[in-house]
Amino acid sequence: MSDIKLGIVGLGRLGRTHAMNIANHIPGATLTAACSIAEEELEFARVELGVEETYLTYEEMVDSPNVDAVCIVSPSGFHTEQIRLAIEKGLHVFSEKPLGLEIEDIEKTVEIINAHPEQVFQIGFMRRFDESYQYAKEMVDNGELGELTLIRCYGIDPSSGLESFVKFAGASNSGGLFADMSIHDIDLVRWFSGKEVKRVWALGKNAAYPELDEVNELETGAAMMQLEDKTIAMLVAGRNAAHGYHVETELIGTKGMLRIAAIPEKNLVSVFNEHGVVRPTSQHFPERFKEAFINEMKEFITCINEKRQPGVSAFDGLQGTKVATALQKSIDTNEIVDIPSLESIRS
Amino acid sequence: MSDIKLGIVGLGRLGRTHAMNIANHIPGATLTAACSIAEEELEFARVELGVEETYLTYEEMVDSPNVDAVCIVSPSGFHTEQIRLAIEKGLHVFSEKPLGLEIEDIEKTVEIINAHPEQVFQIGFMRRFDESYQYAKEMVDNGELGELTLIRCYGIDPSSGLESFVKFAGASNSGGLFADMSIHDIDLVRWFSGKEVKRVWALGKNAAYPELDEVNELETGAAMMQLEDKTIAMLVAGRNAAHGYHVETELIGTKGMLRIAAIPEKNLVSVFNEHGVVRPTSQHFPERFKEAFINEMKEFITCINEKRQPGVSAFDGLQGTKVATALQKSIDTNEIVDIPSLESIRS
Amino acid sequence: MSDIKLGIVGLGRLGRTHAMNIANHIPGATLTAACSIAEEELEFARVELGVEETYLTYEEMVDSPNVDAVCIVSPSGFHTEQIRLAIEKGLHVFSEKPLGLEIEDIEKTVEIINAHPEQVFQIGFMRRFDESYQYAKEMVDNGELGELTLIRCYGIDPSSGLESFVKFAGASNSGGLFADMSIHDIDLVRWFSGKEVKRVWALGKNAAYPELDEVNELETGAAMMQLEDKTIAMLVAGRNAAHGYHVETELIGTKGMLRIAAIPEKNLVSVFNEHGVVRPTSQHFPERFKEAFINEMKEFITCINEKRQPGVSAFDGLQGTKVATALQKSIDTNEIVDIPSLESIRS
Amino acid sequence: MSDIKLGIVGLGRLGRTHAMNIANHIPGATLTAACSIAEEELEFARVELGVEETYLTYEEMVDSPNVDAVCIVSPSGFHTEQIRLAIEKGLHVFSEKPLGLEIEDIEKTVEIINAHPEQVFQIGFMRRFDESYQYAKEMVDNGELGELTLIRCYGIDPSSGLESFVKFAGASNSGGLFADMSIHDIDLVRWFSGKEVKRVWALGKNAAYPELDEVNELETGAAMMQLEDKTIAMLVAGRNAAHGYHVETELIGTKGMLRIAAIPEKNLVSVFNEHGVVRPTSQHFPERFKEAFINEMKEFITCINEKRQPGVSAFDGLQGTKVATALQKSIDTNEIVDIPSLESIRS
Repeated sequence: MSDIKLGIVGLGRLGRTHAMNIANHIPGATLTAACSIAEEELEFARVELGVEETYLTYEEMVDSPNVDAVCIVSPSGFHTEQIRLAIEKGLHVFSEKPLGLEIEDIEKTVEIINAHPEQVFQIGFMRRFDESYQYAKEMVDNGELGELTLIRCYGIDPSSGLESFVKFAGASNSGGLFADMSIHDIDLVRWFSGKEVKRVWALGKNAAYPELDEVNELETGAAMMQLEDKTIAMLVAGRNAAHGYHVETELIGTKGMLRIAAIPEKNLVSVFNEHGVVRPTSQHFPERFKEAFINEMKEFITCINEKRQPGVSAFDGLQGTKVATALQKSIDTNEIVDIPSLESIRS
Repeated sequence: MSDIKLGIVGLGRLGRTHAMNIANHIPGATLTAACSIAEEELEFARVELGVEETYLTYEEMVDSPNVDAVCIVSPSGFHTEQIRLAIEKGLHVFSEKPLGLEIEDIEKTVEIINAHPEQVFQIGFMRRFDESYQYAKEMVDNGELGELTLIRCYGIDPSSGLESFVKFAGASNSGGLFADMSIHDIDLVRWFSGKEVKRVWALGKNAAYPELDEVNELETGAAMMQLEDKTIAMLVAGRNAAHGYHVETELIGTKGMLRIAAIPEKNLVSVFNEHGVVRPTSQHFPERFKEAFINEMKEFITCINEKRQPGVSAFDGLQGTKVATALQKSIDTNEIVDIPSLESIRS
Repeated sequence: MSDIKLGIVGLGRLGRTHAMNIANHIPGATLTAACSIAEEELEFARVELGVEETYLTYEEMVDSPNVDAVCIVSPSGFHTEQIRLAIEKGLHVFSEKPLGLEIEDIEKTVEIINAHPEQVFQIGFMRRFDESYQYAKEMVDNGELGELTLIRCYGIDPSSGLESFVKFAGASNSGGLFADMSIHDIDLVRWFSGKEVKRVWALGKNAAYPELDEVNELETGAAMMQLEDKTIAMLVAGRNAAHGYHVETELIGTKGMLRIAAIPEKNLVSVFNEHGVVRPTSQHFPERFKEAFINEMKEFITCINEKRQPGVSAFDGLQGTKVATALQKSIDTNEIVDIPSLESIRS
Repeated sequence: MSDIKLGIVGLGRLGRTHAMNIANHIPGATLTAACSIAEEELEFARVELGVEETYLTYEEMVDSPNVDAVCIVSPSGFHTEQIRLAIEKGLHVFSEKPLGLEIEDIEKTVEIINAHPEQVFQIGFMRRFDESYQYAKEMVDNGELGELTLIRCYGIDPSSGLESFVKFAGASNSGGLFADMSIHDIDLVRWFSGKEVKRVWALGKNAAYPELDEVNELETGAAMMQLEDKTIAMLVAGRNAAHGYHVETELIGTKGMLRIAAIPEKNLVSVFNEHGVVRPTSQHFPERFKEAFINEMKEFITCINEKRQPGVSAFDGLQGTKVATALQKSIDTNEIVDIPSLESIRS
């Protein structure tokens, strides 16, 4: 079986992670092409990763005969268009989240993806491929927790990035705290429960940087969500964890509960020093989800080879954005927001 | 300095805990009288605790010259009346929570209490006297967490009691999950933040015992609350923790966060066995808050001796019930409920 | 039943702890007398604890008709003589460890104690009365760990006291690291295993303060001990724990293992801050063993009232000192030291 | 740069791990050849790993022009001879521990290895390549623990394998508990301290399977070791951990201490169930050291490409076996055993 040839678009922090993984850690895949508007990023791809074809435009890359599949890690605003173009060219597509910025645009894209079931499409919800999350999912699926009643998800970025976020908050558009930070948590809620979110209320508070109020951004936010079967979900999102990168998930069921990364342990070391007994912590997503990024890409390649679709779909991406959008609307109004049921969406 | 003479009313599980503490662990206090409608409880007081005066009616007990102060641990419906009677008789009062069942009735009682500032009044929010909570409060007050942005409180009873709760849920009136279970958590939110709750939404789900729906009771509930300064509070209340008695509090601030009893560790033992590495857990409130119950009673006696009021007041009791009532209303309507500001209350 | 009247000798740090416990926390006991050569300590006893009789000499105190029992917390060199005098006067005796400094002298004292079985004698191995240790002992006795194969005990004092120890190490005679620090651990090994120590080797290293070599003291020491049934015991003793007061015990059995205070958790709080996730730690023995000191004294009073001997005996004190002495001899010679079996001791 | 071509000898459990790693996870390496006396193992190599050349004899494999380096995972008794043959053929060598069974034979082999400094030699002390161990080593090297005074290492296999071990204990020759289990721990002691072991005493106890006494094998063993600078090392080795695969290392220094895998956490999940709060645990070495096995092989390939020797040498292998041999001698005699200093060895 010959290697699947991948072209990547976008070589920022996350793009670089994917590019290095494809080049070094994914048996059966070759990174044959890279696209970026930054020449030094293409230089990196050529020199460090041995990528043979580099492009300044995406359109050229998807026309290359040496590209079987694309990995889209460009800015979110480009995702839907790039996905659609790749699908039209007959390529398999791995796209980072979110699928897009506008729900209608995403819906149109999902339709096109669904119309090409023979082309593999996967969205970058890598947490589903983390071994701790997989261990938890297996316990849930085996009924070890009984029926789920409550899911709590925290996603808090380290304080180290907050000052710079504040500085550029006015200029850049993060999409809001929930779209930016909670999209993975929303996916986890849907994945673990197998249910859709129906009704949400979201709150926020800016305390370290009250000036974020002016640009409609949040330092810390929280949401409570009611799922269609009354399961309760609680989200906390933030940008100011002094101890590092805090992604934690809790599942409460009728027979027991579990927590994933209640302490975001960096490794197996405990330090006993003048501060007390200290567990060092993960500091950022590439560290915490290093293996998960590799595993999701392996799954993408395996799906291509086995001619099947992965467990995580374009529809999951669409639903995640719908919920994030509702949360933002709730923040804007300080009121409960209902999310239309699937029937009304599909009609 | 001669001992403060205490009379206790109510000798159920919690009453017995208080009675034994007063009899054995509170220097400067003597349990001189006990009141109950159950003769065997009075027998216990006489034989086991050496109580000299026992009464079948509260009215008689508060007339005894051998009673300086009362400890009210009777069913909640009697609290306001018993408090008012003791105050009228010139006695100091320690009352278990809640102050009462009806807000107007409580407000009237608080007015009477406040009109007698020379008599000590204390409500049984014992968690404030637990050493872990005190350690946390000191950190908050020292600014070690910065400004608080989010408080999360869990109060989940052990599964062992659920079956019996379900059996009697129709007959007894628990007051609802939040009044029954979250009142301490609401007090913690107010205590740590120093702010009042303004706006709440509550959700619930019955999964192990769906029949609870019929009697308007809950197995698991959750609430999100907005405080007057936008601080966010999240509550989880439940009756079905397989691992024991789970009371956990989290404080997130701009400089750091802390958790109290993230694992409700029973002691300092870890067991390494076929299940993995296990921390045994607390199984009920008398175990978890053993020292706190003693400490709060010591504070009550100290306040009497030092002629001052404790840090926890009748007003705290009133506010707790107001929030719990709002949460229940939110459960009943599945809508956000606003809590009138203090100005409107006081007018 | 009237209160047992106790006289205490020695009001240093530990003596004060015992005195305050007797005065405030031990139902059925009254601290009627105190003896010290320091007038300000007697003043403390009178004023703070309401002790009616204070003495400058022990001989006078044990002659008082208001003393039923003594609590000996004087310097170790006085223990045997004070124990014998109290026994002769017909008093019950609670003595701090060690029983004495010389094995022959202790043996003579144990004989006298054993000749008066109607007088309660208890030695201050308070760890046996700590709730975590009791929980562990119950597991062992219930067979939950199977047969014990290895016991590991750490006893490390906080770094905060090291500088001052070094300063006075030449002048004072600590008895050596093992006699000073490991005597409780030796007792735990004997208590958990029910076996005697047969053969030992001990090592030490001075690194922070190499000058301790000159005064034959140790900063850090360790020992391996073979018990009569081949069970293995490992001890670590030290004076330089940066994180606080580290007393940890591990039991390994054929069915499982357990650790007591693997992290010497101060309370139930975890702090998430710039250092990582931190468990604050106990800082000294009065903090760590606060309840154990109370519990052991309660047991002493209960034994007097119930006319029985406690589970911890004078013989336990003798054996502890024998092992500590062997460990010191091993340090001095860097060779294995055998401990004569009981038969030879008793002959 | 073309790929390094590797031949592997031995395809048992560990051999398979190495083979799969080389085939799938080591950029710059190709598994071109495999050697085994078991035809079905060679079949596995051909079919599953795409190995082109398979051999029934090692001599043939090392003669292949398609082998630049060998990976030796054969039974320990073959190591020295296979190493020497590969070195003679000009190949780079990665060999599993131990280097051999007889110290003289190992010494001779080390001499030959050292005589070919242009050929890379690496021994499989993979723990040095585990990220937790590397984090700890960096802390030590940065002086964050001050000067080391004590190192404690546990290596305990899961109970699940004990019964089968007992069954075959008479027939197979494990080399003894310390050679079999502690060799990695001895290496860690030397690596962290940078010092040699000078004097040891070892003890053992068979409790679950007393019949192991008859075949001179141990269920649980322990050792205390004095290093040349007086640093103390304590080892526990065993075959009966109910909770899984327990490899733990503790470093105590003058400024602080640390523990690696005090709980052998399987992942980041905590389960709250009827047993208490449970951390699932690693169950075997391929699970615990999955990444370390990959990392050590990457280092081997990198050393070949960069024409340098790895940090872990043949001499480390020799010293490890010397200490393990001394520990076994100590078990056999129940006496202290001195290890000749390097000078005497080299002379």
